[in-house]
Amino acid sequence: MEVWFTENQTPSVRLGLKVKSILHQAMTPYQELMVAETDAYGRMLVLDGAVQTTVMDEFVYHEMITHVPLMIHPHPQRMGIIGGGDGGAVREALKHPSVEQVHLVEIDAEVVRQAKRYFPEISVELDNPRTQVHCTDGIEWVRQARDLDVLVVDSTDPVGPAVGLFQPEFYQSVADCLGEEGVMVAQSESPFLEPEVIQMVVQGMRTVFPVVRLYLAAIPTYPSGFWSFTLGSKGPLPGPADLSRAKFATRYWTPAIHEAAFALPQFVEDLIR
Amino acid sequence: MEVWFTENQTPSVRLGLKVKSILHQAMTPYQELMVAETDAYGRMLVLDGAVQTTVMDEFVYHEMITHVPLMIHPHPQRMGIIGGGDGGAVREALKHPSVEQVHLVEIDAEVVRQAKRYFPEISVELDNPRTQVHCTDGIEWVRQARDLDVLVVDSTDPVGPAVGLFQPEFYQSVADCLGEEGVMVAQSESPFLEPEVIQMVVQGMRTVFPVVRLYLAAIPTYPSGFWSFTLGSKGPLPGPADLSRAKFATRYWTPAIHEAAFALPQFVEDLIR
Repeated sequence: MEVWFTENQTPSVRLGLKVKSILHQAMTPYQELMVAETDAYGRMLVLDGAVQTTVMDEFVYHEMITHVPLMIHPHPQRMGIIGGGDGGAVREALKHPSVEQVHLVEIDAEVVRQAKRYFPEISVELDNPRTQVHCTDGIEWVRQARDLDVLVVDSTDPVGPAVGLFQPEFYQSVADCLGEEGVMVAQSESPFLEPEVIQMVVQGMRTVFPVVRLYLAAIPTYPSGFWSFTLGSKGPLPGPADLSRAKFATRYWTPAIHEAAFALPQFVEDLIR
Repeated sequence: MEVWFTENQTPSVRLGLKVKSILHQAMTPYQELMVAETDAYGRMLVLDGAVQTTVMDEFVYHEMITHVPLMIHPHPQRMGIIGGGDGGAVREALKHPSVEQVHLVEIDAEVVRQAKRYFPEISVELDNPRTQVHCTDGIEWVRQARDLDVLVVDSTDPVGPAVGLFQPEFYQSVADCLGEEGVMVAQSESPFLEPEVIQMVVQGMRTVFPVVRLYLAAIPTYPSGFWSFTLGSKGPLPGPADLSRAKFATRYWTPAIHEAAFALPQFVEDLIR
């Protein structure tokens, strides 16, 4: 007997993953949350029907959303992460010795709770003394935050609780909460399947940040397998990684990937011209 | 009413594409061939249940399997393509003015016939006087070929008619059919889902070619969306593209992508160490 989980990635594209067992399934105050064990990608977290993370491919997303801005900022000490309740971005951030404090701002406490229970390898640094977990609205939190060096928006898709994280007003709040050399990154969906989201994010950030750049990574369980991140910077520019700071173990990010990820296919260049 | 095509990409991963209509479905002497119209990716060619090409994303595969070796060879004039009966690689190759002759060696004449009928935008150069189509076995054809500058193996997966194209003996035949500065490229599957194929291809080519390099591209309708190509060279090394030769229109390949595609994620580096 076979059990399959199917994500309707768009109205006309589906990803099917064979499932060994469903470990948890519940409505939280914000969304439907499921934890299942898949054959191909190991344990998987699903929110409102969309795969958020799997044990086998989470390293790509978490390394790329974290190490890229942290290596671009000249000396990151204080960091905020909006969303990302599974803790994967926190785990990567704490690999940087300069980072003294990471604020994880996850609106849904249930995501943090189930991540600690079912994804110990991802949530491993949530109880680190350098980590502060705030289960509150990220938009509100950013409004009162100040002097952050790096802010990462590790959000769900721009539907449901995450809609406000894709608005220009939010990017202005982020700019205000960042210090002089501040850098932000937001996940910005697939260039093949949601080009209009990339355009919205890039245009929104351009109204606020003098430097806006897109970079890309391959994430098999996300729609189309090809994912974009949009970086907004008050000053620091993407460029070669300072190798003296790249002294941590990774599975996707490398100093060469750090630069190569900003090389955009022609059709993506055309999208954001 | 909805009709969905489903590819079992592995025993535990499926891609589903909503289908408007099935245009052609038949057994050829070699495989089952289907042409269908999809909502998300336009017209699609399927062989033995595996998506080969779609009108919306074929540009990635065809540009990357063709322009990379052609730009690495210092002056490519004679080229062979094994497989690739849809004509996409031929179309890209003929964008290079130095290329005088392209031999397309497709074992299954039905693929060429249906490509001409249903994929005019892909097969557009199959009747060009610089193109010679040979509907014959690629392994046999390579054995008697000589003095090619570039050989591209645009094959199906290493099952069915393509098995022999993944063997070391075949790579030796390719080396013998190439001139002194000859370069070959073979598609070599997904690093996420078929790492053992990459290892087999890289190890096989290393027994024959002094230079072997892997490069990557994002292809949404192929398993995991992330695809590898293995390049074997008798001498020329991957490096910056000669911009004076990059005077053709593309949608994925750019001079920056030409270099960035060789930057490998750490887990892929580890695979082929």
